[in-house]
Amino acid sequence: MELDAQWIVGFVDGEGCFHVGINPHPEMTAGFQVLPEFTVQRERDVQVLHALKVYFGCGVVRKNNGDRVAYRVRGHEHLSKNILPFFEKHPLKSRKRVDFAKFREIVNLMNQGEHLKRDGVERIREITEKMNRKALKIKSD
Amino acid sequence: MELDAQWIVGFVDGEGCFHVGINPHPEMTAGFQVLPEFTVQRERDVQVLHALKVYFGCGVVRKNNGDRVAYRVRGHEHLSKNILPFFEKHPLKSRKRVDFAKFREIVNLMNQGEHLKRDGVERIREITEKMNRKALKIKSD
Repeated sequence: MELDAQWIVGFVDGEGCFHVGINPHPEMTAGFQVLPEFTVQRERDVQVLHALKVYFGCGVVRKNNGDRVAYRVRGHEHLSKNILPFFEKHPLKSRKRVDFAKFREIVNLMNQGEHLKRDGVERIREITEKMNRKALKIKSD
Repeated sequence: MELDAQWIVGFVDGEGCFHVGINPHPEMTAGFQVLPEFTVQRERDVQVLHALKVYFGCGVVRKNNGDRVAYRVRGHEHLSKNILPFFEKHPLKSRKRVDFAKFREIVNLMNQGEHLKRDGVERIREITEKMNRKALKIKSD
């Protein structure tokens, strides 16, 4: 299955997620591990997820809970080299672009080694707190 | 906001729904009313939904339960003239294309007046029973 760049943008506007986990990790100097991840989760359509993996040239397709399957890219190298440049060139159209901008900021901080410092992790945590927020109240027509 | 056809296909592959309701309706000769509807539902992004409405030149954007908003097209005329030709020209890539094919079949039957006959409604009901099914079991890798 050949995918078109604009189709991918639309699909990710619909089903994609940019998430950054911050987990306690005593072996790291900063005491935490920062885990940025880009995922697209579906109840079906393993074929479409495999096509995304081929297109981006990185990541894995895994079965999650029950019938859910997910395409997932972790690690700031793959994210920096394969995922970020794509969405910089082909901007998201939904409010998910706000999450993407924050995600990109964090991956760039990681490329500068900020996630290895205590104050860098704090800065990253502050950015994550503004991500994946629920909708603002929508006024009635 | 200008939308690209392939972006729309990707977004609908992610968030779109093709549904046909069959409701008891004593005033209709067949005893039922057949209600095909195309919807795209979101928790946010009322702007994107309005852009879809402009693109397709039909339908409404409405607030649903809570923070959910939906773009919705009902009525076999708008569906036949605006929605069906778009997805015939720009095929869906996910398994949702299977639902679309059945939806299209039903709208075409309605254009022939089949929804006004008892046996036509039965035939439509049989098609709807094969729509919007959950995923088949996915084998582990």
